[in-house]
Amino acid sequence: MDLAKFIRDVPDFPKPGILFKDITPLLNDPAAFAEAVGRMAAPFPRDSIDAVAAAEARGFLFAAPLALALQKPLVPLRKPGKLPYQTHSLQYDLEYGQAELQVHIDGLAPNARVLVVDDLLATGGTLAAACQLCEKAGGNVASCIVLIELAFLHGRDKLKPYRIHSVLQF
Amino acid sequence: MDLAKFIRDVPDFPKPGILFKDITPLLNDPAAFAEAVGRMAAPFPRDSIDAVAAAEARGFLFAAPLALALQKPLVPLRKPGKLPYQTHSLQYDLEYGQAELQVHIDGLAPNARVLVVDDLLATGGTLAAACQLCEKAGGNVASCIVLIELAFLHGRDKLKPYRIHSVLQF
Repeated sequence: MDLAKFIRDVPDFPKPGILFKDITPLLNDPAAFAEAVGRMAAPFPRDSIDAVAAAEARGFLFAAPLALALQKPLVPLRKPGKLPYQTHSLQYDLEYGQAELQVHIDGLAPNARVLVVDDLLATGGTLAAACQLCEKAGGNVASCIVLIELAFLHGRDKLKPYRIHSVLQF
Repeated sequence: MDLAKFIRDVPDFPKPGILFKDITPLLNDPAAFAEAVGRMAAPFPRDSIDAVAAAEARGFLFAAPLALALQKPLVPLRKPGKLPYQTHSLQYDLEYGQAELQVHIDGLAPNARVLVVDDLLATGGTLAAACQLCEKAGGNVASCIVLIELAFLHGRDKLKPYRIHSVLQF
């Protein structure tokens, strides 16, 4: 199945000059969504990771089925003020301004091998922050997996210490 | 399996006097998470619905596996500015102030029977908005399904026209 057919290009979103990769047509097709999750899970034998982590919100759409498919704990990484228990926090720079992600202090077992999931790898800022937060919480990042990699943005450069898998490259 | 054991009570979150139901221990246990998704899917034969919709972000954690399990389109309902294509919008009142949800104009087929998913039913404001937005987008709400219902908050009253299923009641 050619999953790229289920990704819609939306010009000038979120601002002029940006061609946005819209995953909602893929979510809207049950066979394509299942195929995408299967291809994201495929590189990771069940005994190669201990947990699946993802930042809200789109990351959750793929991380939840992946955690269930791999039968591993799902660890949500959230924006400040969303997680109710004690948290580790990590601030990071965006193109304009700063952002922050949090994880519960008991989210990851010590030295857990973590698969960090997102829908898209663009400049890599959010994914790098997610990886660093997992390490701050005591885990080891085993790999990152994304559905879509915008290779021309060189997000891998920002993720140098980590292994990166992507299903679709543009 | 007693799924209630995987829900952690966090006192005074998000403000003093509120006992928050934390689902992260359930997400952290693969067997419990799988059981929760299975029990959320059980009331809905595959031919009884046409689509699964959920508001970000926690709703995505259950809606994605449910859509895959039921082999139905997954329709994300998002906060303003997140969906790239043309949208329908619905503003609704929260305890303090207003909020808004959006859905793509091509998210739902006409008269699609929609299963609206969330993790928690409290006062029902967000779930009612999600249902109304699905109707605005041309769908019919077949049912709502939540993992946790805080029955003492009488959220069902705000959802009167709709059928509501919940797995756990407190």
